[in-house]
Amino acid sequence: MSTQVSISSRADCAALDAQDPLGHLRDRFELPEGVIYLDGNSLGARPRASLARAHEVVAMEWGQDLIKSWNSAGWFDLPKRLGDRLAPIIGARPGEVAVTDTTSLNLFKALAAALEIQRQKAPERKRIVTERSNFPTDIYMADGLARWLDRGYSVHLVDSVEELPAAVDADCAVLMLTHVNYRTGRQHDMAALTRHAHEAGALAVWDLAHSAGAVPLDLHGAQADFAVGCTYKYLNGGPGAPAFIWVPERHQAAFSHPLTGWWSHAAPFAMSHGFTAADGIGRALCGTQPVVSLALVECGLEIFEETDMAAIRAKSLALTDLFIALVEARCASHPLGLVTPREHAHRGSHVSFTHPHGYAVMQSLIERGVIGDYREPEIMRFGFTPLYTSYADVWDAVEILRDILDSGRYDANAARSAVT
Amino acid sequence: MSTQVSISSRADCAALDAQDPLGHLRDRFELPEGVIYLDGNSLGARPRASLARAHEVVAMEWGQDLIKSWNSAGWFDLPKRLGDRLAPIIGARPGEVAVTDTTSLNLFKALAAALEIQRQKAPERKRIVTERSNFPTDIYMADGLARWLDRGYSVHLVDSVEELPAAVDADCAVLMLTHVNYRTGRQHDMAALTRHAHEAGALAVWDLAHSAGAVPLDLHGAQADFAVGCTYKYLNGGPGAPAFIWVPERHQAAFSHPLTGWWSHAAPFAMSHGFTAADGIGRALCGTQPVVSLALVECGLEIFEETDMAAIRAKSLALTDLFIALVEARCASHPLGLVTPREHAHRGSHVSFTHPHGYAVMQSLIERGVIGDYREPEIMRFGFTPLYTSYADVWDAVEILRDILDSGRYDANAARSAVT
Repeated sequence: MSTQVSISSRADCAALDAQDPLGHLRDRFELPEGVIYLDGNSLGARPRASLARAHEVVAMEWGQDLIKSWNSAGWFDLPKRLGDRLAPIIGARPGEVAVTDTTSLNLFKALAAALEIQRQKAPERKRIVTERSNFPTDIYMADGLARWLDRGYSVHLVDSVEELPAAVDADCAVLMLTHVNYRTGRQHDMAALTRHAHEAGALAVWDLAHSAGAVPLDLHGAQADFAVGCTYKYLNGGPGAPAFIWVPERHQAAFSHPLTGWWSHAAPFAMSHGFTAADGIGRALCGTQPVVSLALVECGLEIFEETDMAAIRAKSLALTDLFIALVEARCASHPLGLVTPREHAHRGSHVSFTHPHGYAVMQSLIERGVIGDYREPEIMRFGFTPLYTSYADVWDAVEILRDILDSGRYDANAARSAVT
Repeated sequence: MSTQVSISSRADCAALDAQDPLGHLRDRFELPEGVIYLDGNSLGARPRASLARAHEVVAMEWGQDLIKSWNSAGWFDLPKRLGDRLAPIIGARPGEVAVTDTTSLNLFKALAAALEIQRQKAPERKRIVTERSNFPTDIYMADGLARWLDRGYSVHLVDSVEELPAAVDADCAVLMLTHVNYRTGRQHDMAALTRHAHEAGALAVWDLAHSAGAVPLDLHGAQADFAVGCTYKYLNGGPGAPAFIWVPERHQAAFSHPLTGWWSHAAPFAMSHGFTAADGIGRALCGTQPVVSLALVECGLEIFEETDMAAIRAKSLALTDLFIALVEARCASHPLGLVTPREHAHRGSHVSFTHPHGYAVMQSLIERGVIGDYREPEIMRFGFTPLYTSYADVWDAVEILRDILDSGRYDANAARSAVT
């Protein structure tokens, strides 16, 4: 179902902001003057605390304490310590999450582990099933893994969510899905799809890149098998900040992957030439981590500890409902097409509209200070991040969009480029 | 051969410092008061420029310009741009080096590519040959790859460098070596061993973790096949800073690996579900990189542009010669054993001595401000970094070592722990 919205002025939006239980958290972020930032689904805004933290890590921990900081500043423990702080946001438990490497690499580890588990119990299962509309890198990583193993594995792409249940059949080893689609903002029913995978004998691996910090997640409740995700979007960890991987305790003993660097060793400093995997989530690590980028992830996570995902979700839905309603009411004469589901249960925290000149319109929006982004084909994406997006931001963004469309002030022939 | 050293006082050392053509570069680094830092082979000291650069990336590029910085601040191009700046230090050419991921992961890519090249032309070759004394993570990664591929590959460990030529036989697909050994400081003859590998039909993959920025390297002159290395040691890129990978132009078309994330795609923003590898070094990339850590690598690299590796090597040998001579002269009554080769051609830029209480003696040194590190068994490591280590540092460090040994002021029962 979706909420009814009856907002007819900026003052109505300002009134909502005045009552917003998350309103005070906006001040935890540095937002540039004159900008309405609707791209937190791509790169989260900067927590104010991150500047002092960067200074501390660079000037003091590195500059003054040097090598000692691996222990004294807890650099070694950062992947697990940050994982424990991230865990409640995704419905995980302490000791089950590590912040490390990239989403792509963590997906590779999770898929490799899932295939190995299946090889032990159902070696005839040779397919990784996913959606053609998944984020491409997920498909590339699965494909790279399948081709290199050269044992008959393949990646099976389905064209719509409706085809998924049938595709998860006796050949399916792993169902690999991104929980909220990067283009459409459509959210899958994690519990139902995981249940279906399990009933069919498959494992379910989830990419939470557009979900973590955006929508409530209950990995244990859904009985998901493995999950990976991103810290630089809704978790506000900083550009390209290390990603996360979740391995539930019930799968940790069986979790194995080929990226067995020394950080995944049971005793990394014994410097033995034989590999013994660490107990627990440590075995999901690989090599030495980029400490400065990693440390800044904490500044994003600590803001989440002042609220909860239910409050964030309530505001997210209110913001996206408002945006959809205002665009449809105030830009009604323009050929905009809503891509994102209206139904709350199927919606993430970004909203996508098509427009025949979507790229050019988005360029004009950006020039006017409304920062969203563009994805082929014709899709304008607008991310709503309840920790720092206000209702008045939504009003103002729609008014600027309306003005651009009404006036036709966009360059319909603009050359295209795009960013992550 | 080794240099004769006749230094008999701190004043002699100070005189050498006064004439040191690299002496002015020490001021480019922040070094804590009261510390003689001999661990730059583990974590390089902080370039002064890195603090302002961190501020710029965090406050301005992230905080103010947000998502635009992927293009406007050149974040996307950083791996290749930094690779081009790093290239001259290792004897590589522009377009052949990327700064990305970790040394472990880059080694995995290089080994995978080498095995695939061999599989095309000599599929019967099933061995990766390396030394048992190699850095353990290199052996773990090779072993992880070999086991995961499950096509009869194995890692063959030799116990001494003398056994290498015989081990590189008709079964050997890849000779994988670390150029300067992390414990002993012994340097391999890259050109000779690579030539031997090629004559035997094998490819040669080199880990330059303890070489890049420490000793002159000529990858093309040696006709090496692939190389990887570390930026946080002698290159002073910051704690855990992203590593590098070198793929010479002659191998780029054949370079393939399973970690095919979107950054290695020919057109990452086309968002096509089919993978097409980028031309050139771009195909060695995988996922989104940790921008803050990555950007700081540049502050280390730019210092190298004010000198050259010949000048660095000359001072490195002078420092290590001096250290060996002073330790042997002034601590002669103590059971210290030199592990590092005396011959210049076989020496890197760190010196290791054994002592029956090596761990405890190193702890006392650290308490007195002389920071080296410890490696099992019984090895005290001292790294000499010509950009910021002075001859007087060497004198003072040896005097403190002598005082600790003469006075017996170390805790022979100290519990052991160690850092990278």
